[in-house]
Amino acid sequence: MDIKEKLVCLRKLMIENNIDYYYIPTSDFHLSEYVGDYFKERAFMSGFNGSAGYLLIGLNDAYLWTDGRYFIQAEKDLKNTTITLMKMGEENVPTIFEFLKKNGKDKTIAFDGRCVPSSFGYALDFLGLKIISNVDLVNYIWKNRPSLPNSKAYILDLKYAGEDINSKINKLINNLDDEHASLSIITSLDDIMWILNLRGDDVYCNPVLLSYLIIYKDHLDLYIDKNKLNDEIINYLNKSNVNIKNYNDIYNDIKEFKNEAILLDKNKVNYQILSLIKDNNKIISKENKSTYLKAIKNDIEIKNTKYAHELDAVAMIKFIYWLKNNVGKIKITELSASDKLLSFRKENEYFKDISFETIAGYGPHGAIIHYAPNEETNIEILPNNLLLVDSGGHYLYGTTDITRTIVLGNISNIMKRHFTLVLKSHLNLLNAKFLKGTTGATLDFAARQPLWQNGLDYKHGTGHGVGYLLNVHEGPQRINYNARNVSIDAGMITSDEPGLYLENEYGIRHESLILAIKDKKNEFGEFLKFEPLTLVPFDKDGIDKSLLNEEEINILNNYHKLVYDKISPYLDNELKAYLKELCKEI
Amino acid sequence: MDIKEKLVCLRKLMIENNIDYYYIPTSDFHLSEYVGDYFKERAFMSGFNGSAGYLLIGLNDAYLWTDGRYFIQAEKDLKNTTITLMKMGEENVPTIFEFLKKNGKDKTIAFDGRCVPSSFGYALDFLGLKIISNVDLVNYIWKNRPSLPNSKAYILDLKYAGEDINSKINKLINNLDDEHASLSIITSLDDIMWILNLRGDDVYCNPVLLSYLIIYKDHLDLYIDKNKLNDEIINYLNKSNVNIKNYNDIYNDIKEFKNEAILLDKNKVNYQILSLIKDNNKIISKENKSTYLKAIKNDIEIKNTKYAHELDAVAMIKFIYWLKNNVGKIKITELSASDKLLSFRKENEYFKDISFETIAGYGPHGAIIHYAPNEETNIEILPNNLLLVDSGGHYLYGTTDITRTIVLGNISNIMKRHFTLVLKSHLNLLNAKFLKGTTGATLDFAARQPLWQNGLDYKHGTGHGVGYLLNVHEGPQRINYNARNVSIDAGMITSDEPGLYLENEYGIRHESLILAIKDKKNEFGEFLKFEPLTLVPFDKDGIDKSLLNEEEINILNNYHKLVYDKISPYLDNELKAYLKELCKEI
Repeated sequence: MDIKEKLVCLRKLMIENNIDYYYIPTSDFHLSEYVGDYFKERAFMSGFNGSAGYLLIGLNDAYLWTDGRYFIQAEKDLKNTTITLMKMGEENVPTIFEFLKKNGKDKTIAFDGRCVPSSFGYALDFLGLKIISNVDLVNYIWKNRPSLPNSKAYILDLKYAGEDINSKINKLINNLDDEHASLSIITSLDDIMWILNLRGDDVYCNPVLLSYLIIYKDHLDLYIDKNKLNDEIINYLNKSNVNIKNYNDIYNDIKEFKNEAILLDKNKVNYQILSLIKDNNKIISKENKSTYLKAIKNDIEIKNTKYAHELDAVAMIKFIYWLKNNVGKIKITELSASDKLLSFRKENEYFKDISFETIAGYGPHGAIIHYAPNEETNIEILPNNLLLVDSGGHYLYGTTDITRTIVLGNISNIMKRHFTLVLKSHLNLLNAKFLKGTTGATLDFAARQPLWQNGLDYKHGTGHGVGYLLNVHEGPQRINYNARNVSIDAGMITSDEPGLYLENEYGIRHESLILAIKDKKNEFGEFLKFEPLTLVPFDKDGIDKSLLNEEEINILNNYHKLVYDKISPYLDNELKAYLKELCKEI
Repeated sequence: MDIKEKLVCLRKLMIENNIDYYYIPTSDFHLSEYVGDYFKERAFMSGFNGSAGYLLIGLNDAYLWTDGRYFIQAEKDLKNTTITLMKMGEENVPTIFEFLKKNGKDKTIAFDGRCVPSSFGYALDFLGLKIISNVDLVNYIWKNRPSLPNSKAYILDLKYAGEDINSKINKLINNLDDEHASLSIITSLDDIMWILNLRGDDVYCNPVLLSYLIIYKDHLDLYIDKNKLNDEIINYLNKSNVNIKNYNDIYNDIKEFKNEAILLDKNKVNYQILSLIKDNNKIISKENKSTYLKAIKNDIEIKNTKYAHELDAVAMIKFIYWLKNNVGKIKITELSASDKLLSFRKENEYFKDISFETIAGYGPHGAIIHYAPNEETNIEILPNNLLLVDSGGHYLYGTTDITRTIVLGNISNIMKRHFTLVLKSHLNLLNAKFLKGTTGATLDFAARQPLWQNGLDYKHGTGHGVGYLLNVHEGPQRINYNARNVSIDAGMITSDEPGLYLENEYGIRHESLILAIKDKKNEFGEFLKFEPLTLVPFDKDGIDKSLLNEEEINILNNYHKLVYDKISPYLDNELKAYLKELCKEI
């Protein structure tokens, strides 16, 4: 079937069910950042394959919204499909809400309510549309639909997790009392994995298992495909009063809830779940308690994560050595460089997977913030330009995320100036001391200031939280001037990743993960500071020393000394000598 | 009547009216920062005279809550009154809400609902207390109660205000449509004065008139004591469709509102007003539109304010010259120094009043953040210590607020170190460039960083907004790490006032007013920067140059050059030579 035929089939079903619009987002039932093939209905129905976008199908028309990253690709993919491309952010292009406000009054819109956030459904409700949210029409058309992911679960041993399942469950049951709740529904996969000390491989780059969890005062119900669990795991869960139920049964079970006080996070729970319970129960919407608990790493997680970063640094340093020595001599492309880096990471026995798709952006590609090379965009890496490599790994000992911008051959003075200004930004945040209670919105200034003073900026956050062998993007903490209310507390890991992007020229980003730790406590309050977790040198070939003040030079030299001291014991003599050179004082 | 007798009288009235607790705050009907004598019921009933505190009278007990500034004074004042002092912030001292949660269930509490914010009343409601809010029992006891303030209104000419009354009124009427409101109630006095281009002298240090304003789509009602208005002003108001009504009639008038959509700011409107309208109307609570409009100074206000700061600088420089030359030679006290400074300000014909009570804190008094000298605390100013002087004036050309810390004789190296670190903080904010949309929570880091890096801090905000011949503290903008959501936009004036306070030793604060202005606009966005309005040198006798980097030295020298260029034309030769010395490069 081509796209037009699929649309015909879908519209038949729409007419049979009195549906005026059918909406297809890009999401799984848990609103995860990445989705498995089973959930790629939008790509199936439109032919457009990008990571972001949503489709609205009317009885005579159809529209696909996507953002600037994908305009060119989407135009190509949508040719001859009769689907209109809606370029988000362009002038005179309505948002889907504006579109439906104008065209949707008293019409009926349908969608799979399991794949949209609660807030989306209520916004449509507000616009006066009738909503059908318990259908998945595409499923009737999609003959060879991939199956739901079916990876096997494994238990994360206490020596990795640092806190056992019973301790975590107790905290959450106590929290029910604190919030005057009778039960709690958790649907975000990183939360569930953290609570149960389980991991899997259901979502690309995220070591999680598709599941839902309900916490009652005396037991828990885990909704999951039982094939993912072996007897040992079932036994392990039952011992902690966790019952196993079928993945999809949650929707039937929660329908029966009456007069319960249900604790959940409206921003994380899908529309269908909330719709089924909101009328007969009291909803207490709060950020999941586990989200904050998970963000404060325990002592064992911290010790392990430091080890993971040492292992990861070895791979990165091997990669830099290989690249700098071979560029211009053998053919290297963005994709082959990514593969090479992966091969170095794989040399380590504790490496499990990459933590996100490797961004290897050479020259102008470095300026595309969300760029990841594919067969069509792949270009050769040659001397006299910059290569931005943003990558990370999942290890049993934790998750890494690092960006280094590598100088190849000779670069211009202006490139060095930009490279150095971004480094100033990075170092200024790394070096920050701050009072307990300070939020990421305030700390952001430390990183922005050196760029803002020069009329420069980067259009992304400075820092995101990172999980432990879990998602590489985990809240609640963020460092960004629009991030509100969440303080950076001792034990939190965030990235420190200022950048600078010159369209069609080059991109620069310097990213390390940093750990917030306690500093001095005195009559002025309790202070915190950062400790770098990432231990890979910055490329001195990009530095214009005249732009750094004495303090910044000291911070950099101290960091490089730390890198050498920690990482050189892992290296053979040749690499050790190379690292010594990379870490020499400026 | 002594306090005990007053309590007996009040309790009689409470019993007659079935009241269990009577609550007396420190506020006027407009929740102003300062209150007139008429509103000092708490001082009348308790004998405690401090600027902050509230009294709760039960049938057999009575409690006064106040903060650390007043513990010693309150202990003295409450002796033999039977009133228990509740030291706010001390361990085991409940807040009034905690107290009433424990003791107030199903009890009846009464208060004058015109003197408490809406939020307070609703919090009590939430605790399960019965509320009577339309009484003022103290009024029956207070025989020689001062009358309500009765200053005369005057019109602020267009050459001072920069925008005429009709233009402002039109914006607010249009705003009714934008907010789908049928009318708007404004009770904050600075807003009303700004809208009508009126000023008065009803509130200490604030050039305002007690009044309420209701904005309808076709006219406005101003509730005010008519004796304050002469015929010219009445005519002026009528011409702009502003009707005059009796001050207290608003409470009767709004009772009649039915099915209106009423726009107001719940944080600024008193409980009684909201109580009278909330059940029969739709309440749309938003920050008053005029609050934001007022914060963005127009071109004439900016030009005028710059002139006011030049006039004010002349007075400050004369004061510094007099003080430095006379300290240790003639007897100078905190109070006599304040008087001297006032006399220099009064030399200018456009000076109207001080904009707040002058803080002249010598030595250890400088470390008391809200200190203002009185006859009991007044001490002599002698060499070899610091004098912190925080003061300001209202001029027809605008409002000033400046703190300089003046070095008298020789001070220790550690004092110089602290003086210089606070100066680094001040200069770092003054020099900040930032993207449009940046909030005061982010900018605060610029000022905190130099202190935080050294484990130091100040327990107050870095910056507050300032009115134009209006309140010296005016929002919505603030610079503080707990300030949320309000961006610092071009045209806004704030203070830049980091400090450092060493209890029982000394205090340092460097405060100038700064104006946010547009800087460059490029592909990274629209940038802003600050321009200093205050033009008075920092005392170089306090500076340890070795702690300043090259950039900071440049900023300071450039600022001092600007001060000399702008202010020297106002001075005679002797003072000009002195200023030249003060402004010489370091």
